[in-house]
Amino acid sequence: MNSKDRFSEQQKAKVREIEEILKTFLPKEEGYQKIIMEAMEYSLLAGGKRLRPMLMQETYLLFSGGVKRKEDADALHSFMAAQEMIHTYSLVHDDLPAMDNDDYRRGRKTTHVVYGEDMGILAGDALLNYAFETAALAFEDRTADAAKVGRALGILSRKAGIYGMIGGQVIDVKETGHEVSGDMLDTIYKLKTSALIESSMMIGAVLGGAEDADVKAVERIAGNVGHAFQIQDDILDVTGQEEALGKPVHSDEKNKKTTYVTLCGISEAKRIVEEKSREAISGLKDLPGVNEYLEQLLLYLINRER
Amino acid sequence: MNSKDRFSEQQKAKVREIEEILKTFLPKEEGYQKIIMEAMEYSLLAGGKRLRPMLMQETYLLFSGGVKRKEDADALHSFMAAQEMIHTYSLVHDDLPAMDNDDYRRGRKTTHVVYGEDMGILAGDALLNYAFETAALAFEDRTADAAKVGRALGILSRKAGIYGMIGGQVIDVKETGHEVSGDMLDTIYKLKTSALIESSMMIGAVLGGAEDADVKAVERIAGNVGHAFQIQDDILDVTGQEEALGKPVHSDEKNKKTTYVTLCGISEAKRIVEEKSREAISGLKDLPGVNEYLEQLLLYLINRER
Repeated sequence: MNSKDRFSEQQKAKVREIEEILKTFLPKEEGYQKIIMEAMEYSLLAGGKRLRPMLMQETYLLFSGGVKRKEDADALHSFMAAQEMIHTYSLVHDDLPAMDNDDYRRGRKTTHVVYGEDMGILAGDALLNYAFETAALAFEDRTADAAKVGRALGILSRKAGIYGMIGGQVIDVKETGHEVSGDMLDTIYKLKTSALIESSMMIGAVLGGAEDADVKAVERIAGNVGHAFQIQDDILDVTGQEEALGKPVHSDEKNKKTTYVTLCGISEAKRIVEEKSREAISGLKDLPGVNEYLEQLLLYLINRER
Repeated sequence: MNSKDRFSEQQKAKVREIEEILKTFLPKEEGYQKIIMEAMEYSLLAGGKRLRPMLMQETYLLFSGGVKRKEDADALHSFMAAQEMIHTYSLVHDDLPAMDNDDYRRGRKTTHVVYGEDMGILAGDALLNYAFETAALAFEDRTADAAKVGRALGILSRKAGIYGMIGGQVIDVKETGHEVSGDMLDTIYKLKTSALIESSMMIGAVLGGAEDADVKAVERIAGNVGHAFQIQDDILDVTGQEEALGKPVHSDEKNKKTTYVTLCGISEAKRIVEEKSREAISGLKDLPGVNEYLEQLLLYLINRER
């Protein structure tokens, strides 16, 4: 088996492991409000690469010496689930008629199409709230260090909010149809895409016992990965194959969207991806600890062809 | 000044104090995403009785011996603001076209009417997320006890979610136009109204240093208050004066809504309010500590005429 195939096998196994973890945190489907639990499960178990919990776990392992310490496992798992719930709620609300108005996602009907628009709004709210409820479970675990869990919770909330993911969505929504400057585009990418990648890796670092300076370094690495990831998205929209991507290409051009490709051309965009990628990997190598899978995962994210 | 007037003066002063606290937690209006900070402020500073943060602070004072301890003040204030943000986000989303479709609230245009439906959704999300960001600030305060703050955060999230406020909204939305049983009506009231009153008082108790058994007792008191409050609402819809209430009366009848009055008649509904009220006050008197203003506040909530 070559290294690419081996990585792909490992990745699949890890996705399966993460989905098992996610399932343990799903609320039981009971009570008069049962329909909301169904809608949450429908949204959360819609497939996907589970990148954010994976990045969290792998960054944790980098700092914990490759082992999941017994006293950290429950807290780590609850934050992995919480982060995926936050990512999922943002997709559910993004798909709403007043937002992107999408009827399908990953080949399945979107949540509001199945459960109605009112339940789509409430399911998103429920997932966001339940994310914090799930993360707060870590305080009930008496073996976990409450101050460390508190720090992780601060990062989880901040990067998902108006100075992170929501902030990015706000600018994106507000600027649709307007010309966007390079600085603004960078801000959108930083907030909309990088913020949750940053918090995933930072929380993994915090729970793994990283020093403050190393958490800062992890934030920079994740920022570069997120930025490169998003520029690669712009490139693939021009050079990619519709079949491989599973979504239409040239959509940015059709929507007259400002992207790195429209701003600085394909070859410059590729050069920037290359640069950010080098910075991320060199930052990773400077950290105390090694996780080869994490290095491959970051490279895969940046250089993916779909 | 009679005792009713004195209470009313005290209440006004306390509302002003709480609004000053709220303002210190509002995000600065800056950055490309500035519009979302404006929408959050517009929603949060729309007036109101500030009941939930007031109940939190007064319950805290009951357990702290009537003084705001220096080491608790920051944590208490951040949870008071967080709770009001959660209450406010629920109103913003409730008013959306796909939900109650209300253009006005307390005589002002609703958030989505002023900022657009997409920003209405995002402003609600932003307030909910920012609530947890604000509560998590308490972990940065090194004088605060992280385990205690963690317990408060668990209560804040749980009572706002699918086993609390959101759960109640889900049942309410789902059952609109259907016949509702007494048990289901109790569940809606318990979740939709009581849950946030419970968490407000419980968090105040936890931060004030209450024992587990006393936090449980506070939960029962708050449950009775919330229940009585909601039944009183049903009664006022039939007996109240439109002018005093500031909203149309007989709306439940027009909307064919099941209420305590339709289920068991006015006099029985009044008797239940009386009973719950007595239970709440007797529970309050059993707690270690005294807060006369809190007792008056609970009675005011239950027996209000508007």
